[in-house]
Amino acid sequence: MKLYGYFRSSATYRVRIALNLKGVAYVNEFVHLRRDEHQTATYREVNPQGFIPALEDDDGEVMNQSLAIIEYIDETCPFPPLLPNHPADRARVRALAQIVASDIHPLDNLRVLRFLRNELARDEVTVARWYNHWMAEGFKTIEAMLANDDRTGRFCHGDQPGLADICLIPQVVNAATYELDLSPYPTIQRIFGTCMGLDAFYKAHPQRQPDSE
Amino acid sequence: MKLYGYFRSSATYRVRIALNLKGVAYVNEFVHLRRDEHQTATYREVNPQGFIPALEDDDGEVMNQSLAIIEYIDETCPFPPLLPNHPADRARVRALAQIVASDIHPLDNLRVLRFLRNELARDEVTVARWYNHWMAEGFKTIEAMLANDDRTGRFCHGDQPGLADICLIPQVVNAATYELDLSPYPTIQRIFGTCMGLDAFYKAHPQRQPDSE
Repeated sequence: MKLYGYFRSSATYRVRIALNLKGVAYVNEFVHLRRDEHQTATYREVNPQGFIPALEDDDGEVMNQSLAIIEYIDETCPFPPLLPNHPADRARVRALAQIVASDIHPLDNLRVLRFLRNELARDEVTVARWYNHWMAEGFKTIEAMLANDDRTGRFCHGDQPGLADICLIPQVVNAATYELDLSPYPTIQRIFGTCMGLDAFYKAHPQRQPDSE
Repeated sequence: MKLYGYFRSSATYRVRIALNLKGVAYVNEFVHLRRDEHQTATYREVNPQGFIPALEDDDGEVMNQSLAIIEYIDETCPFPPLLPNHPADRARVRALAQIVASDIHPLDNLRVLRFLRNELARDEVTVARWYNHWMAEGFKTIEAMLANDDRTGRFCHGDQPGLADICLIPQVVNAATYELDLSPYPTIQRIFGTCMGLDAFYKAHPQRQPDSE
């Protein structure tokens, strides 16, 4: 497996955790986001969207979009499973993941912050307000879904880490960017602490990547 | 099955198509988005996020997030399948769906447009530019992924409609909001025409819903 990614990209971070949890060895192919290496013609041949991450499997097949990649990893390396067995429980875990992947992260990623700064001429105070607003909205929902459901265990769903934790933890790391106050989210904080005690999450952290600056 | 939704919500539209393709009967529970009925305490008891759609199954279990709901529908009513068999193909279809659900729609939905207007004091010209910018970015990628892959058939993947079409078609309907020029996306336009010839898509169209205004 070859993973095209960047240490700071939280969508890449998700895939790193998934590969670690499965014990799948992979080769890093670094794509420097802030130097716009993702927008080169070479990289667009790998992924026409010019986004990271992309995963190339051992047959040379390239996949994009982190959640699609993680479901692929889960289907091709089933143990340990990243989703529970029961369809309604799977829907719960996928919904938690989707809140991060659809309702928080796309609003706060680099291309959108750049558009706010450059195209809409917004200053850094406004960008910070924007960033934390969408993160707080998403975390409020996730906290409510976790705190009020007895399916929450040591992790987002039960006592094994899975897809929801894989998406949540990189977003909590991102919360430091504009110093979002995490005190309203005690369950999220507790699960973050538990996950960071696991090698799969700890070793996937941006600051522990070879391309980290 | 009970579907909490709103005729104009394109995430609800996705779920309507999925239920129609499966031939699953459902009861509508209308939540009027522009009257903020999704933000009432009553609705937040159904879905703490206050988002639509939400799906209540026959056991009273409520699910949220359209993609999680559609995967649930696909797992509990397997025929006709909404995803292909091979894991790499499933990843392709999920990636196409995710580009709509993560990279286009979250940037262009009502709460974000309201934030631009009210919190950032942007005018309608800027809002329209924003809306069409993210849609064009996403459609450009989807068109490239569809046009350059021989797995594309009458539909986004092969000759049966599935998850990618379910996400794409409501987004094409949304493109009319600010009159996005669709001429750079011939494959998307062709698939839109094919889908609209099917009852499952045609009957799910916003203008054909009982709560349509």
